[in-house]
Amino acid sequence: MTRTASILAVGSELLGTTRLDTNSLFLTGELEAIGIPVVRKACVGDGWDGLLTELAFALTRAPLLCVTGGLGPTEDDRTKEAVAALLGRRLVRDGEILERLRERFRKRGREMPEVNAKQADVIEGAVVLPNRRGTAPGYLVEAEGKTIVLLPGVPWEMKAIFAESVRANLTGGGTPPGVHRRVLKIVGLGESAVEEVVRPVYEAHRGHDVTILAASPGEVQLHFAARGTPEEARTELDALEADFRSAVGPALFGRDDETLEGVVGALLKGAGLTLAVAESCTGGMVASRVTDVPGSSAYFLGGAVTYADLAKMEILGVSPEILEARGAVSEEVAREMAAGVRLRLGAASGLGVTGIAGPGGGSPEKPVGTVHIALDAADGTKKHERLVLPGDRAMVRRWTTSAALGMIRGWLMERGGAG
Amino acid sequence: MTRTASILAVGSELLGTTRLDTNSLFLTGELEAIGIPVVRKACVGDGWDGLLTELAFALTRAPLLCVTGGLGPTEDDRTKEAVAALLGRRLVRDGEILERLRERFRKRGREMPEVNAKQADVIEGAVVLPNRRGTAPGYLVEAEGKTIVLLPGVPWEMKAIFAESVRANLTGGGTPPGVHRRVLKIVGLGESAVEEVVRPVYEAHRGHDVTILAASPGEVQLHFAARGTPEEARTELDALEADFRSAVGPALFGRDDETLEGVVGALLKGAGLTLAVAESCTGGMVASRVTDVPGSSAYFLGGAVTYADLAKMEILGVSPEILEARGAVSEEVAREMAAGVRLRLGAASGLGVTGIAGPGGGSPEKPVGTVHIALDAADGTKKHERLVLPGDRAMVRRWTTSAALGMIRGWLMERGGAG
Repeated sequence: MTRTASILAVGSELLGTTRLDTNSLFLTGELEAIGIPVVRKACVGDGWDGLLTELAFALTRAPLLCVTGGLGPTEDDRTKEAVAALLGRRLVRDGEILERLRERFRKRGREMPEVNAKQADVIEGAVVLPNRRGTAPGYLVEAEGKTIVLLPGVPWEMKAIFAESVRANLTGGGTPPGVHRRVLKIVGLGESAVEEVVRPVYEAHRGHDVTILAASPGEVQLHFAARGTPEEARTELDALEADFRSAVGPALFGRDDETLEGVVGALLKGAGLTLAVAESCTGGMVASRVTDVPGSSAYFLGGAVTYADLAKMEILGVSPEILEARGAVSEEVAREMAAGVRLRLGAASGLGVTGIAGPGGGSPEKPVGTVHIALDAADGTKKHERLVLPGDRAMVRRWTTSAALGMIRGWLMERGGAG
Repeated sequence: MTRTASILAVGSELLGTTRLDTNSLFLTGELEAIGIPVVRKACVGDGWDGLLTELAFALTRAPLLCVTGGLGPTEDDRTKEAVAALLGRRLVRDGEILERLRERFRKRGREMPEVNAKQADVIEGAVVLPNRRGTAPGYLVEAEGKTIVLLPGVPWEMKAIFAESVRANLTGGGTPPGVHRRVLKIVGLGESAVEEVVRPVYEAHRGHDVTILAASPGEVQLHFAARGTPEEARTELDALEADFRSAVGPALFGRDDETLEGVVGALLKGAGLTLAVAESCTGGMVASRVTDVPGSSAYFLGGAVTYADLAKMEILGVSPEILEARGAVSEEVAREMAAGVRLRLGAASGLGVTGIAGPGGGSPEKPVGTVHIALDAADGTKKHERLVLPGDRAMVRRWTTSAALGMIRGWLMERGGAG
């Protein structure tokens, strides 16, 4: 039996210029994991005729239909009414739901507005899916061989109801085979370089969709999936991951929700080492990513954003002669920035970043996108990298930030391997 | 005549867990501006039957259908074929398009792969919409009182074709009445405070949709629209804007694409003043936003990210006694940071930011979210603000960053007004 699903998002706000139906991404992942691929999705406004027509059409496209939105208390919220009308069923007010609604308002010291009472109306024969996080419960209706799931449009309510009630209802509580995804993250290699080194791996594992994604400037992701029960899929994903890891080598830094700054932080913390950074073209982005990580004060001492030459001399002690002779964007200055900030703050490691982010400031010898990154460590390690990056100001800055974090990670990995 | 539109995005990649159809946001804005509201939209995969069925259904929903994606050279790209099949028309190879395709490849020193030839196939009777930015032209087909526009899925190709050919085709080259939008941006007032001050304005201008949006932590946006020709709409939007400006007052900092950091930069540049920043909890985010602006080196000298107490003392000269007596998160330390970084770099103004972003580090007297922001200027101005912000680490950091930029803007506005 191949089950498939259709998703319909209801709400006129989804037909404007600012909002997209992000709920469908979550639902797609969850449905795929229990073996139900999504074959189409749509957004429709609150108008009655449009809603009815879209619901009827969606039901012809797949045996499972997930509808989000339109379960609120206002006049515009008519998803439940439309589904009832379509199936020729009545709406019946449920005393227990009504009492829970009143109780919810009472707890907050308020009387329930009468409009909310309609949230206690249940489509005849529907299973009610409790909503711990809001007033509108979800519903699951079986009719004419189809299953319709109604969920609120508020993401965190929708997600909780899915996890707590929908999944088990659709699977009968078991763990059916499905599609399970994994993401591996790479820094310091371009998309085509990654493509080249991983091609033999995915050619050896045919039948797996492997996508190479330039996720953000300087970082490349490998997305892949395996079918089966969660256990079967895990075994297969682990095997694929092992092969990808050995093909990509040390540039592969993380998996799924891991971030480069989180990995760097964990390595620093694990080694009991501290970091200080000196930035020019990235203007604080390296420090800002490092300090995105909760608890980063354990290993991050601070940094300097030295945009003007004077700041480089005054705060970091970069020598005026080298600035004069080599220019602010040079290997020597990057090295002096790294050493200067490290010594200044008494850190175990220092990063120095200088470059031309553009749009102005380029020259034939130093075009826009020229960047120097240097590392200076108390153990005597010194590194330097020169990059000439493509793209606009924002891209050069983001790429440089990832490359700088990649450099500190590289040092920590080598150090760990040697120690 | 009320024309409405339906949008269909074609591509199996749009039915996964990572990508949304962002093209529809652009198309919606463009269509609204020429008086054509979007009444529904959908995504479908590359499969033939699904594609045909969705196309046929979409055509029943609105007289105009915009389809994006599926015009590429591969086997999976069958949008043109499906539309031709649906309308019972033939595909005819166009010699001129074919020659342009070959020429395009030749210019890059390559032979055109034979698969690309199908991109020269035109649906009988269709208008070809040239694609300056890629190989797949767009098409406009009239049939049975309906208009179908086919566009490539690559955003920057799609946008160029819309601007250069579709708009004029749909309007006959005129400027029909439509919906025109404007956004006003506010810093330093919460959503409900904004709601309160602007309510009288939008109650006086009934018939305008006004939306108040917490766009990012610390910044609130007013979205509103007017109907009419571009000129009529502009007059009306200007009147609304004037009323909103007088209701909101100086907290209103910009419009449409303007950013807070851009506005601050322009004010600094205009006044010939320089800025230096000292950050603790924001960890470089203030400096990074200031330097997002091209040309910021004209007024931004640099900054310090002083996470550790030692860094505050060593780089900024914050006194150990005050750190000891008041704690790193205190009015006094924020003021010393602002003065310290200003003096250190010889800037006209200095900002100091210290706070507890969480999740750890809070106490009953200084809960997570407590932030102190200070300004110290060479003209003798000193400012200080204490905030207790809601939300998680990321939210506290982003909110603090906006508030700090708001403070420097406030000073520059007062100064301008006084001078």
